[in-house]
Amino acid sequence: MTQTKKKRIAFVGAGNVAWHLAQALAAAGHDVKAVYSRSRTSREALTGKLPQAQPIKTPDFRSFDLEMVIIAVPDAALADVAAALKVSPGALVVHTSGSQPLALLQQVKGARVGVFYPLQTFSKIKPVDLAQVPLLVEALDEETLHQLESLAKSISNQVYQVSSEARKQLHLAAVFACNFTNHLLGISQQLLQEANLPKQLLQPLIEETITKAAQQNPFAVQTGPAVRGDGNVLQAHLQLLEQHPTYASLYRQLSKSIQEQAQSGSGKTDKV
Amino acid sequence: MTQTKKKRIAFVGAGNVAWHLAQALAAAGHDVKAVYSRSRTSREALTGKLPQAQPIKTPDFRSFDLEMVIIAVPDAALADVAAALKVSPGALVVHTSGSQPLALLQQVKGARVGVFYPLQTFSKIKPVDLAQVPLLVEALDEETLHQLESLAKSISNQVYQVSSEARKQLHLAAVFACNFTNHLLGISQQLLQEANLPKQLLQPLIEETITKAAQQNPFAVQTGPAVRGDGNVLQAHLQLLEQHPTYASLYRQLSKSIQEQAQSGSGKTDKV
Repeated sequence: MTQTKKKRIAFVGAGNVAWHLAQALAAAGHDVKAVYSRSRTSREALTGKLPQAQPIKTPDFRSFDLEMVIIAVPDAALADVAAALKVSPGALVVHTSGSQPLALLQQVKGARVGVFYPLQTFSKIKPVDLAQVPLLVEALDEETLHQLESLAKSISNQVYQVSSEARKQLHLAAVFACNFTNHLLGISQQLLQEANLPKQLLQPLIEETITKAAQQNPFAVQTGPAVRGDGNVLQAHLQLLEQHPTYASLYRQLSKSIQEQAQSGSGKTDKV
Repeated sequence: MTQTKKKRIAFVGAGNVAWHLAQALAAAGHDVKAVYSRSRTSREALTGKLPQAQPIKTPDFRSFDLEMVIIAVPDAALADVAAALKVSPGALVVHTSGSQPLALLQQVKGARVGVFYPLQTFSKIKPVDLAQVPLLVEALDEETLHQLESLAKSISNQVYQVSSEARKQLHLAAVFACNFTNHLLGISQQLLQEANLPKQLLQPLIEETITKAAQQNPFAVQTGPAVRGDGNVLQAHLQLLEQHPTYASLYRQLSKSIQEQAQSGSGKTDKV
Protein backbone atom coordinates (compact mmCIF):
# COMPACT_ATOMS: atom_id res chain seq x y z
CA MET A 1 0.00 0.00 0.00
CA THR A 2 1.12 3.54 -0.63
CA GLN A 3 0.30 6.78 1.12
CA THR A 4 -1.74 9.33 -0.77
CA LYS A 5 -3.11 12.83 -0.24
CA LYS A 6 -5.81 12.78 2.42
CA LYS A 7 -9.28 12.91 0.82
CA ARG A 8 -12.56 14.30 2.11
CA ILE A 9 -15.14 11.57 1.57
CA ALA A 10 -18.81 10.83 2.26
CA PHE A 11 -20.73 7.57 2.08
CA VAL A 12 -24.16 6.77 0.76
CA GLY A 13 -25.22 3.54 2.44
CA ALA A 14 -24.19 2.08 5.79
CA GLY A 15 -24.37 -1.62 4.98
CA ASN A 16 -21.62 -4.23 4.91
CA VAL A 17 -19.50 -2.65 2.16
CA ALA A 18 -19.72 0.91 3.55
CA TRP A 19 -18.99 -0.45 7.03
CA HIS A 20 -15.61 -1.91 6.06
CA LEU A 21 -14.62 0.59 3.38
CA ALA A 22 -15.35 3.70 5.47
CA GLN A 23 -13.39 2.41 8.45
CA ALA A 24 -10.44 1.33 6.29
CA LEU A 25 -10.32 4.74 4.58
CA ALA A 26 -10.50 6.52 7.94
CA ALA A 27 -7.74 4.28 9.29
CA ALA A 28 -5.62 5.18 6.25
CA GLY A 29 -5.91 8.87 7.23
CA HIS A 30 -8.75 10.00 5.00
CA ASP A 31 -11.45 12.25 6.33
CA VAL A 32 -14.84 10.51 6.21
CA LYS A 33 -17.14 13.48 6.83
CA ALA A 34 -20.69 12.16 6.39
CA VAL A 35 -22.73 8.99 6.10
CA TYR A 36 -26.20 8.95 4.58
CA SER A 37 -28.52 5.99 5.03
CA ARG A 38 -32.31 5.78 5.16
CA SER A 39 -31.95 3.75 8.32
CA ARG A 40 -31.10 5.92 11.28
CA THR A 41 -29.79 2.95 13.25
CA SER A 42 -27.42 1.98 10.43
CA ARG A 43 -26.01 5.43 9.75
CA GLU A 44 -25.48 6.12 13.44
CA ALA A 45 -23.87 2.73 13.99
CA LEU A 46 -21.33 3.54 11.28
CA THR A 47 -20.66 7.15 12.31
CA GLY A 48 -20.19 5.80 15.84
CA LYS A 49 -17.10 4.09 14.40
CA LEU A 50 -15.95 7.26 12.58
CA PRO A 51 -15.35 10.09 15.08
CA GLN A 52 -15.25 12.79 12.39
CA ALA A 53 -18.33 11.71 10.43
CA GLN A 54 -21.83 13.09 10.67
CA PRO A 55 -24.94 10.94 10.09
CA ILE A 56 -27.26 12.66 7.60
CA LYS A 57 -30.83 11.83 6.61
CA THR A 58 -31.07 13.17 3.06
CA PRO A 59 -28.52 12.39 0.31
CA ASP A 60 -27.62 16.05 -0.10
CA PHE A 61 -23.90 16.65 0.35
CA ARG A 62 -23.69 20.20 -1.04
CA SER A 63 -23.05 21.76 2.35
CA PHE A 64 -20.04 19.51 2.96
CA ASP A 65 -16.67 20.39 1.52
CA LEU A 66 -16.24 16.99 -0.17
CA GLU A 67 -14.01 15.64 -2.90
CA MET A 68 -15.73 12.32 -3.22
CA VAL A 69 -18.96 10.42 -2.52
CA ILE A 70 -18.89 6.63 -2.37
CA ILE A 71 -22.23 4.94 -3.03
CA ALA A 72 -22.39 1.55 -1.35
CA VAL A 73 -26.02 0.39 -1.66
CA PRO A 74 -27.66 -2.77 -3.04
CA ASP A 75 -27.56 -2.98 -6.86
CA ALA A 76 -31.32 -2.65 -7.09
CA ALA A 77 -31.27 0.70 -5.23
CA LEU A 78 -28.36 2.19 -7.17
CA ALA A 79 -30.28 3.96 -9.96
CA ASP A 80 -32.72 5.60 -7.54
CA VAL A 81 -29.94 6.71 -5.22
CA ALA A 82 -27.95 8.16 -8.14
CA ALA A 83 -31.01 10.14 -9.25
CA ALA A 84 -31.64 11.57 -5.77
CA LEU A 85 -28.01 12.41 -4.98
CA LYS A 86 -26.98 16.06 -4.65
CA VAL A 87 -23.28 16.99 -4.70
CA SER A 88 -21.22 20.13 -5.30
CA PRO A 89 -20.11 20.64 -8.91
CA GLY A 90 -16.96 18.73 -9.79
CA ALA A 91 -17.22 16.23 -6.94
CA LEU A 92 -16.27 12.66 -7.74
CA VAL A 93 -19.09 10.12 -7.33
CA VAL A 94 -18.33 6.39 -7.43
CA HIS A 95 -20.31 3.23 -6.89
CA THR A 96 -19.04 -0.02 -5.39
CA SER A 97 -21.01 -2.55 -7.43
CA GLY A 98 -19.51 -5.48 -9.29
CA SER A 99 -22.39 -5.94 -11.68
CA GLN A 100 -23.46 -2.38 -12.52
CA PRO A 101 -21.90 -0.27 -15.29
CA LEU A 102 -20.21 3.05 -14.74
CA ALA A 103 -22.77 4.59 -17.12
CA LEU A 104 -25.43 4.25 -14.42
CA LEU A 105 -23.87 7.22 -12.61
CA GLN A 106 -23.98 9.58 -15.56
CA GLN A 107 -27.30 10.90 -14.35
CA VAL A 108 -25.63 12.44 -11.29
CA LYS A 109 -25.63 16.11 -12.19
CA GLY A 110 -22.37 18.03 -12.34
CA ALA A 111 -20.25 15.18 -11.01
CA ARG A 112 -17.30 13.22 -12.32
CA VAL A 113 -18.04 9.52 -11.99
CA GLY A 114 -16.23 6.27 -11.40
CA VAL A 115 -16.32 2.78 -9.95
CA PHE A 116 -14.56 1.67 -6.77
CA TYR A 117 -15.34 -2.03 -6.37
CA PRO A 118 -13.91 -4.16 -3.55
CA LEU A 119 -14.04 -7.77 -4.74
CA GLN A 120 -14.94 -9.60 -1.54
CA THR A 121 -18.05 -10.53 0.46
CA PHE A 122 -18.36 -8.55 3.64
CA SER A 123 -20.33 -8.96 6.82
CA LYS A 124 -20.24 -6.45 9.66
CA ILE A 125 -19.46 -8.98 12.35
CA LYS A 126 -16.38 -10.34 10.60
CA PRO A 127 -13.15 -8.30 10.32
CA VAL A 128 -11.66 -8.18 6.81
CA ASP A 129 -8.07 -7.40 5.91
CA LEU A 130 -8.80 -4.97 3.08
CA ALA A 131 -5.09 -4.87 2.18
CA GLN A 132 -5.58 -8.32 0.59
CA VAL A 133 -8.89 -7.51 -1.11
CA PRO A 134 -8.68 -6.70 -4.85
CA LEU A 135 -9.97 -3.19 -5.53
CA LEU A 136 -11.21 -2.56 -9.07
CA VAL A 137 -11.35 1.00 -10.32
CA GLU A 138 -12.83 2.57 -13.44
CA ALA A 139 -13.31 6.14 -14.67
CA LEU A 140 -13.98 8.05 -17.88
CA ASP A 141 -10.82 10.17 -17.84
CA GLU A 142 -7.18 9.59 -16.90
CA GLU A 143 -7.11 12.11 -14.07
CA THR A 144 -10.09 10.60 -12.26
CA LEU A 145 -8.67 7.15 -12.83
CA HIS A 146 -5.39 8.14 -11.18
CA GLN A 147 -7.23 9.66 -8.24
CA LEU A 148 -9.22 6.48 -7.72
CA GLU A 149 -6.15 4.37 -8.11
CA SER A 150 -4.15 6.25 -5.52
CA LEU A 151 -7.10 6.18 -3.11
CA ALA A 152 -7.43 2.41 -3.66
CA LYS A 153 -3.70 1.89 -3.13
CA SER A 154 -3.92 3.66 0.22
CA ILE A 155 -6.02 0.75 1.57
CA SER A 156 -5.23 -2.27 -0.66
CA ASN A 157 -2.20 -3.96 -2.19
CA GLN A 158 -4.22 -5.29 -5.10
CA VAL A 159 -5.55 -2.52 -7.31
CA TYR A 160 -6.73 -3.14 -10.88
CA GLN A 161 -8.16 -0.96 -13.65
CA VAL A 162 -11.12 -2.90 -15.04
CA SER A 163 -13.66 -1.68 -17.60
CA SER A 164 -17.43 -2.09 -17.12
CA GLU A 165 -17.39 -4.72 -19.85
CA ALA A 166 -14.64 -6.79 -18.22
CA ARG A 167 -16.23 -6.30 -14.79
CA LYS A 168 -19.44 -7.85 -16.12
CA GLN A 169 -17.52 -10.95 -17.22
CA LEU A 170 -15.67 -10.99 -13.89
CA HIS A 171 -18.99 -10.99 -12.09
CA LEU A 172 -20.12 -13.94 -14.20
CA ALA A 173 -16.86 -15.75 -13.39
CA ALA A 174 -17.46 -15.05 -9.68
CA VAL A 175 -20.95 -16.56 -9.89
CA PHE A 176 -19.38 -19.81 -11.14
CA ALA A 177 -16.43 -19.79 -8.73
CA CYS A 178 -18.29 -18.65 -5.62
CA ASN A 179 -22.11 -18.72 -5.77
CA PHE A 180 -22.30 -22.02 -7.64
CA THR A 181 -19.40 -23.55 -5.72
CA ASN A 182 -21.17 -22.62 -2.50
CA HIS A 183 -24.31 -24.41 -3.69
CA LEU A 184 -22.31 -27.55 -4.53
CA LEU A 185 -20.74 -27.45 -1.07
CA GLY A 186 -24.26 -27.23 0.36
CA ILE A 187 -25.37 -30.30 -1.62
CA SER A 188 -22.25 -32.13 -0.49
CA GLN A 189 -22.94 -31.33 3.18
CA GLN A 190 -26.54 -32.45 2.79
CA LEU A 191 -25.38 -35.80 1.34
CA LEU A 192 -22.90 -36.24 4.20
CA GLN A 193 -25.59 -35.47 6.72
CA GLU A 194 -27.91 -38.06 5.17
CA ALA A 195 -25.19 -40.68 5.76
CA ASN A 196 -24.55 -39.38 9.30
CA LEU A 197 -21.03 -38.34 8.35
CA PRO A 198 -19.39 -35.21 9.80
CA LYS A 199 -18.92 -32.35 7.32
CA GLN A 200 -15.27 -31.81 8.30
CA LEU A 201 -14.43 -35.15 6.63
CA LEU A 202 -14.25 -33.47 3.23
CA GLN A 203 -12.56 -30.27 4.37
CA PRO A 204 -8.93 -31.28 3.59
CA LEU A 205 -9.95 -32.49 0.13
CA ILE A 206 -11.88 -29.29 -0.58
CA GLU A 207 -8.94 -27.14 0.50
CA GLU A 208 -6.58 -29.17 -1.67
CA THR A 209 -8.91 -28.68 -4.66
CA ILE A 210 -8.87 -24.90 -4.17
CA THR A 211 -5.11 -24.74 -3.63
CA LYS A 212 -4.44 -26.79 -6.75
CA ALA A 213 -6.84 -24.69 -8.84
CA ALA A 214 -4.95 -21.56 -7.82
CA GLN A 215 -1.68 -23.04 -9.07
CA GLN A 216 -2.75 -24.88 -12.20
CA ASN A 217 -5.47 -24.87 -14.82
CA PRO A 218 -8.28 -26.84 -13.11
CA PHE A 219 -9.24 -28.41 -16.45
CA ALA A 220 -5.77 -29.97 -16.67
CA VAL A 221 -5.98 -31.53 -13.19
CA GLN A 222 -9.61 -32.66 -13.28
CA THR A 223 -10.19 -35.96 -11.46
CA GLY A 224 -13.24 -38.12 -10.74
CA PRO A 225 -15.55 -40.59 -12.46
CA ALA A 226 -16.73 -38.22 -15.24
CA VAL A 227 -13.29 -37.40 -16.63
CA ARG A 228 -12.23 -41.07 -16.25
CA GLY A 229 -15.32 -42.09 -18.20
CA ASP A 230 -16.26 -44.47 -15.37
CA GLY A 231 -19.85 -45.33 -16.35
CA ASN A 232 -20.36 -47.76 -13.45
CA VAL A 233 -19.66 -45.15 -10.81
CA LEU A 234 -21.76 -42.55 -12.66
CA GLN A 235 -24.73 -44.96 -12.71
CA ALA A 236 -24.28 -45.85 -9.04
CA HIS A 237 -24.18 -42.16 -8.11
CA LEU A 238 -27.30 -41.34 -10.09
CA GLN A 239 -29.05 -44.18 -8.29
CA LEU A 240 -28.00 -42.74 -4.92
CA LEU A 241 -29.52 -39.42 -6.05
CA GLU A 242 -32.94 -40.90 -6.86
CA GLN A 243 -34.57 -38.94 -4.04
CA HIS A 244 -32.99 -35.69 -5.32
CA PRO A 245 -34.01 -35.29 -8.98
CA THR A 246 -32.60 -31.77 -9.26
CA TYR A 247 -29.24 -32.88 -7.90
CA ALA A 248 -29.31 -35.87 -10.27
CA SER A 249 -29.79 -33.61 -13.25
CA LEU A 250 -27.02 -31.30 -11.99
CA TYR A 251 -24.81 -34.38 -11.69
CA ARG A 252 -25.56 -35.32 -15.31
CA GLN A 253 -24.98 -31.79 -16.66
CA LEU A 254 -21.73 -31.29 -14.76
CA SER A 255 -20.42 -34.70 -15.81
CA LYS A 256 -21.33 -33.92 -19.43
CA SER A 257 -19.55 -30.57 -19.26
CA ILE A 258 -16.44 -32.20 -17.74
CA GLN A 259 -16.41 -34.81 -20.50
CA GLU A 260 -16.88 -32.26 -23.28
CA GLN A 261 -14.08 -30.16 -21.85
CA ALA A 262 -11.76 -33.18 -21.58
CA GLN A 263 -12.47 -34.10 -25.21
CA SER A 264 -11.81 -30.58 -26.44
CA GLY A 265 -8.50 -30.94 -24.58
CA SER A 266 -8.11 -27.22 -24.08
CA GLY A 267 -6.93 -27.75 -20.51
CA LYS A 268 -3.77 -29.42 -21.75
CA THR A 269 -2.54 -26.76 -24.12
CA ASP A 270 -4.15 -23.63 -22.88
CA LYS A 271 -2.80 -23.23 -19.35
CA VAL A 272 -4.18 -20.26 -17.50
CA MET B 1 -1.73 -39.70 16.95
CA THR B 2 -1.05 -42.61 19.24
CA GLN B 3 1.69 -45.20 19.27
CA THR B 4 0.74 -48.76 18.46
CA LYS B 5 2.38 -52.15 18.23
CA LYS B 6 4.76 -52.24 15.28
CA LYS B 7 3.20 -54.08 12.32
CA ARG B 8 4.77 -56.07 9.48
CA ILE B 9 3.18 -54.76 6.30
CA ALA B 10 3.44 -55.18 2.51
CA PHE B 11 2.05 -53.04 -0.28
CA VAL B 12 0.39 -53.96 -3.54
CA GLY B 13 0.80 -50.96 -5.82
CA ALA B 14 3.44 -48.26 -5.84
CA GLY B 15 1.40 -45.32 -7.09
CA ASN B 16 0.53 -42.06 -5.34
CA VAL B 17 -1.41 -43.56 -2.43
CA ALA B 18 1.13 -46.33 -1.71
CA TRP B 19 3.94 -43.79 -2.00
CA HIS B 20 2.65 -41.61 0.84
CA LEU B 21 1.06 -44.31 2.98
CA ALA B 22 4.08 -46.65 2.96
CA GLN B 23 6.49 -43.89 3.91
CA ALA B 24 4.21 -42.56 6.65
CA LEU B 25 3.82 -46.07 8.13
CA ALA B 26 7.58 -46.64 8.00
CA ALA B 27 8.16 -43.27 9.65
CA ALA B 28 5.71 -44.26 12.40
CA GLY B 29 7.91 -47.29 13.13
CA HIS B 30 6.10 -50.02 11.21
CA ASP B 31 8.03 -52.56 9.20
CA VAL B 32 7.19 -52.27 5.51
CA LYS B 33 8.70 -55.49 4.21
CA ALA B 34 7.71 -55.73 0.53
CA VAL B 35 6.23 -53.73 -2.35
CA TYR B 36 4.64 -55.41 -5.35
CA SER B 37 3.94 -53.48 -8.54
CA ARG B 38 3.84 -54.61 -12.17
CA SER B 39 6.09 -51.67 -12.99
CA ARG B 40 9.69 -52.37 -11.96
CA THR B 41 10.52 -48.66 -12.01
CA SER B 42 7.65 -47.85 -9.65
CA ARG B 43 8.26 -50.62 -7.12
CA GLU B 44 11.99 -49.87 -7.00
CA ALA B 45 11.37 -46.14 -6.66
CA LEU B 46 9.22 -46.82 -3.60
CA THR B 47 11.48 -49.45 -1.98
CA GLY B 48 14.33 -46.98 -2.53
CA LYS B 49 12.52 -44.83 0.04
CA LEU B 50 11.97 -47.78 2.40
CA PRO B 51 15.32 -49.29 3.46
CA GLN B 52 13.75 -52.46 4.85
CA ALA B 53 11.41 -53.22 1.94
CA GLN B 54 11.98 -55.60 -0.93
CA PRO B 55 10.55 -54.99 -4.42
CA ILE B 56 8.74 -58.10 -5.65
CA LYS B 57 7.38 -58.96 -9.08
CA THR B 58 4.51 -61.33 -8.30
CA PRO B 59 1.78 -60.63 -5.73
CA ASP B 60 2.69 -63.65 -3.67
CA PHE B 61 3.47 -62.70 -0.07
CA ARG B 62 3.41 -66.20 1.48
CA SER B 63 7.18 -66.30 2.05
CA PHE B 64 7.08 -63.06 4.05
CA ASP B 65 6.17 -63.08 7.69
CA LEU B 66 3.41 -60.47 7.28
CA GLU B 67 0.48 -59.34 9.37
CA MET B 68 -1.06 -57.11 6.73
CA VAL B 69 -1.20 -56.37 2.99
CA ILE B 70 -2.38 -52.95 1.84
CA ILE B 71 -3.71 -52.86 -1.72
CA ALA B 72 -3.33 -49.38 -3.23
CA VAL B 73 -4.18 -49.74 -6.92
CA PRO B 74 -6.64 -47.99 -9.26
CA ASP B 75 -10.29 -48.97 -8.62
CA ALA B 76 -10.54 -50.66 -12.00
CA ALA B 77 -7.64 -53.01 -11.17
CA LEU B 78 -8.82 -53.89 -7.67
CA ALA B 79 -10.88 -57.01 -8.46
CA ASP B 80 -8.12 -58.57 -10.59
CA VAL B 81 -5.46 -57.83 -8.00
CA ALA B 82 -7.59 -59.30 -5.22
CA ALA B 83 -8.07 -62.49 -7.27
CA ALA B 84 -4.34 -62.88 -7.94
CA LEU B 85 -3.16 -62.09 -4.41
CA LYS B 86 -1.55 -64.85 -2.32
CA VAL B 87 -1.12 -64.37 1.43
CA SER B 88 -0.48 -66.60 4.45
CA PRO B 89 -3.65 -67.78 6.24
CA GLY B 90 -5.03 -65.24 8.70
CA ALA B 91 -3.22 -62.24 7.21
CA LEU B 92 -5.20 -59.02 7.09
CA VAL B 93 -5.79 -57.66 3.56
CA VAL B 94 -7.18 -54.14 3.09
CA HIS B 95 -7.86 -51.89 0.14
CA THR B 96 -7.53 -48.09 0.06
CA SER B 97 -10.40 -47.19 -2.26
CA GLY B 98 -13.10 -44.66 -1.52
CA SER B 99 -15.62 -46.03 -3.97
CA GLN B 100 -15.21 -49.81 -3.71
CA PRO B 101 -17.01 -51.99 -1.14
CA LEU B 102 -15.26 -54.13 1.43
CA ALA B 103 -17.04 -57.15 -0.09
CA LEU B 104 -14.74 -56.97 -3.11
CA LEU B 105 -11.95 -58.46 -0.99
CA GLN B 106 -13.91 -61.48 0.14
CA GLN B 107 -12.44 -63.47 -2.73
CA VAL B 108 -8.96 -63.26 -1.16
CA LYS B 109 -8.53 -66.78 0.17
CA GLY B 110 -7.87 -67.35 3.86
CA ALA B 111 -7.51 -63.69 4.72
CA ARG B 112 -9.30 -61.33 7.05
CA VAL B 113 -10.33 -58.22 5.09
CA GLY B 114 -10.87 -54.52 5.63
CA VAL B 115 -10.71 -51.01 4.20
CA PHE B 116 -8.05 -48.41 5.00
CA TYR B 117 -9.00 -45.33 3.01
CA PRO B 118 -7.07 -42.05 3.21
CA LEU B 119 -9.44 -39.29 2.11
CA GLN B 120 -7.14 -36.98 0.17
CA THR B 121 -5.71 -36.65 -3.34
CA PHE B 122 -2.04 -37.51 -3.50
CA SER B 123 0.72 -36.83 -5.97
CA LYS B 124 4.25 -38.12 -5.52
CA ILE B 125 5.90 -34.76 -6.03
CA LYS B 126 3.91 -33.04 -3.30
CA PRO B 127 4.49 -33.78 0.40
CA VAL B 128 1.31 -34.45 2.39
CA ASP B 129 0.88 -34.15 6.15
CA LEU B 130 -0.94 -37.45 6.69
CA ALA B 131 -1.60 -36.49 10.31
CA GLN B 132 -4.31 -34.14 8.99
CA VAL B 133 -5.75 -36.55 6.44
CA PRO B 134 -8.97 -38.35 7.48
CA LEU B 135 -8.43 -42.13 7.52
CA LEU B 136 -11.57 -44.23 7.12
CA VAL B 137 -11.50 -47.81 8.33
CA GLU B 138 -13.92 -50.68 7.95
CA ALA B 139 -13.83 -54.37 8.84
CA LEU B 140 -16.18 -57.31 9.34
CA ASP B 141 -15.30 -58.04 12.97
CA GLU B 142 -14.48 -55.97 16.04
CA GLU B 143 -10.94 -57.27 16.46
CA THR B 144 -9.90 -56.43 12.90
CA LEU B 145 -11.58 -53.05 13.22
CA HIS B 146 -9.57 -52.25 16.34
CA GLN B 147 -6.35 -53.32 14.64
CA LEU B 148 -7.05 -51.06 11.67
CA GLU B 149 -8.04 -48.24 13.94
CA SER B 150 -4.87 -48.37 15.97
CA LEU B 151 -2.76 -48.61 12.81
CA ALA B 152 -4.61 -45.57 11.39
CA LYS B 153 -4.15 -43.63 14.63
CA SER B 154 -0.41 -44.20 14.45
CA ILE B 155 -0.23 -41.96 11.35
CA SER B 156 -3.35 -39.74 11.46
CA ASN B 157 -5.25 -37.65 13.99
CA GLN B 158 -8.52 -38.10 12.14
CA VAL B 159 -9.67 -41.71 12.13
CA TYR B 160 -13.28 -42.69 11.41
CA GLN B 161 -15.17 -45.99 11.21
CA VAL B 162 -17.26 -45.78 8.05
CA SER B 163 -19.34 -48.56 6.47
CA SER B 164 -19.16 -49.38 2.74
CA GLU B 165 -22.66 -47.91 2.35
CA ALA B 166 -21.74 -44.59 3.99
CA ARG B 167 -18.42 -44.53 2.12
CA LYS B 168 -20.35 -44.71 -1.16
CA GLN B 169 -22.39 -41.66 -0.20
CA LEU B 170 -19.22 -39.92 0.99
CA HIS B 171 -17.67 -40.50 -2.42
CA LEU B 172 -20.73 -38.97 -4.07
CA ALA B 173 -20.47 -35.98 -1.73
CA ALA B 174 -16.79 -35.63 -2.67
CA VAL B 175 -17.67 -35.60 -6.37
CA PHE B 176 -19.91 -32.57 -5.73
CA ALA B 177 -17.53 -30.80 -3.35
CA CYS B 178 -14.29 -31.47 -5.23
CA ASN B 179 -14.61 -32.80 -8.80
CA PHE B 180 -17.53 -30.56 -9.72
CA THR B 181 -16.16 -27.58 -7.81
CA ASN B 182 -12.88 -28.00 -9.68
CA HIS B 183 -14.76 -27.90 -12.98
CA LEU B 184 -16.57 -24.70 -11.97
CA LEU B 185 -13.22 -23.14 -11.03
CA GLY B 186 -11.96 -24.11 -14.48
CA ILE B 187 -14.93 -22.43 -16.18
CA SER B 188 -14.41 -19.37 -14.03
CA GLN B 189 -10.72 -19.14 -15.01
CA GLN B 190 -11.62 -19.54 -18.67
CA LEU B 191 -14.11 -16.66 -18.40
CA LEU B 192 -11.50 -14.47 -16.69
CA GLN B 193 -8.97 -15.30 -19.37
CA GLU B 194 -11.45 -14.33 -22.09
CA ALA B 195 -11.71 -10.89 -20.49
CA ASN B 196 -7.92 -10.67 -20.04
CA LEU B 197 -8.32 -10.67 -16.27
CA PRO B 198 -5.78 -12.38 -13.97
CA LYS B 199 -7.07 -15.51 -12.23
CA GLN B 200 -5.81 -14.41 -8.81
CA LEU B 201 -8.52 -11.70 -8.81
CA LEU B 202 -11.10 -14.20 -7.56
CA GLN B 203 -8.83 -16.07 -5.15
CA PRO B 204 -9.77 -14.15 -1.96
CA LEU B 205 -13.46 -14.54 -2.75
CA ILE B 206 -13.08 -18.27 -3.41
CA GLU B 207 -11.19 -18.78 -0.15
CA GLU B 208 -13.83 -16.84 1.75
CA THR B 209 -16.55 -19.04 0.20
CA ILE B 210 -14.76 -22.20 1.36
CA THR B 211 -14.05 -20.84 4.84
CA LYS B 212 -17.65 -19.79 5.32
CA ALA B 213 -18.96 -23.14 4.07
CA ALA B 214 -16.83 -24.91 6.67
CA GLN B 215 -18.38 -22.86 9.46
CA GLN B 216 -22.01 -22.60 8.37
CA ASN B 217 -24.57 -24.38 6.25
CA PRO B 218 -23.78 -23.11 2.73
CA PHE B 219 -27.51 -23.12 1.87
CA ALA B 220 -28.12 -20.59 4.65
CA VAL B 221 -25.43 -18.17 3.41
CA GLN B 222 -26.06 -18.51 -0.35
CA THR B 223 -25.53 -15.22 -2.22
CA GLY B 224 -25.73 -14.16 -5.87
CA PRO B 225 -28.33 -13.35 -8.53
CA ALA B 226 -30.12 -16.73 -8.44
CA VAL B 227 -31.00 -16.68 -4.74
CA ARG B 228 -31.89 -12.96 -4.98
CA GLY B 229 -34.21 -13.77 -7.88
CA ASP B 230 -32.45 -11.11 -9.95
CA GLY B 231 -33.81 -11.92 -13.43
CA ASN B 232 -32.00 -9.03 -15.14
CA VAL B 233 -28.57 -10.26 -14.09
CA LEU B 234 -29.48 -13.88 -14.94
CA GLN B 235 -30.48 -12.81 -18.46
CA ALA B 236 -27.34 -10.71 -18.91
CA HIS B 237 -25.16 -13.62 -17.80
CA LEU B 238 -26.86 -16.07 -20.15
CA GLN B 239 -26.24 -13.61 -22.96
CA LEU B 240 -22.53 -13.45 -22.07
CA LEU B 241 -22.49 -17.25 -22.26
CA GLU B 242 -23.91 -17.42 -25.78
CA GLN B 243 -20.64 -18.81 -27.13
CA HIS B 244 -20.62 -21.52 -24.42
CA PRO B 245 -23.95 -23.39 -24.68
CA THR B 246 -22.91 -26.10 -22.19
CA TYR B 247 -21.89 -23.51 -19.61
CA ALA B 248 -25.17 -21.65 -20.24
CA SER B 249 -27.17 -24.76 -19.52
CA LEU B 250 -25.07 -25.41 -16.40
CA TYR B 251 -25.79 -21.83 -15.36
CA ARG B 252 -29.54 -22.41 -15.76
CA GLN B 253 -29.52 -25.74 -13.88
CA LEU B 254 -27.43 -24.44 -11.00
CA SER B 255 -29.57 -21.31 -10.69
CA LYS B 256 -32.71 -23.46 -10.71
CA SER B 257 -31.30 -25.73 -8.01
CA ILE B 258 -30.33 -22.71 -5.88
CA GLN B 259 -33.83 -21.28 -6.23
CA GLU B 260 -35.55 -24.57 -5.40
CA GLN B 261 -33.35 -24.98 -2.36
CA ALA B 262 -34.09 -21.43 -1.19
CA GLN B 263 -37.82 -22.00 -1.58
CA SER B 264 -37.70 -25.25 0.35
CA GLY B 265 -36.01 -23.17 3.05
CA SER B 266 -34.20 -26.14 4.53
CA GLY B 267 -31.01 -24.10 4.87
CA LYS B 268 -32.66 -21.91 7.48
CA THR B 269 -33.92 -24.58 9.82
CA ASP B 270 -31.71 -27.53 9.11
CA LYS B 271 -28.24 -26.28 9.94
CA VAL B 272 -25.47 -28.78 9.31
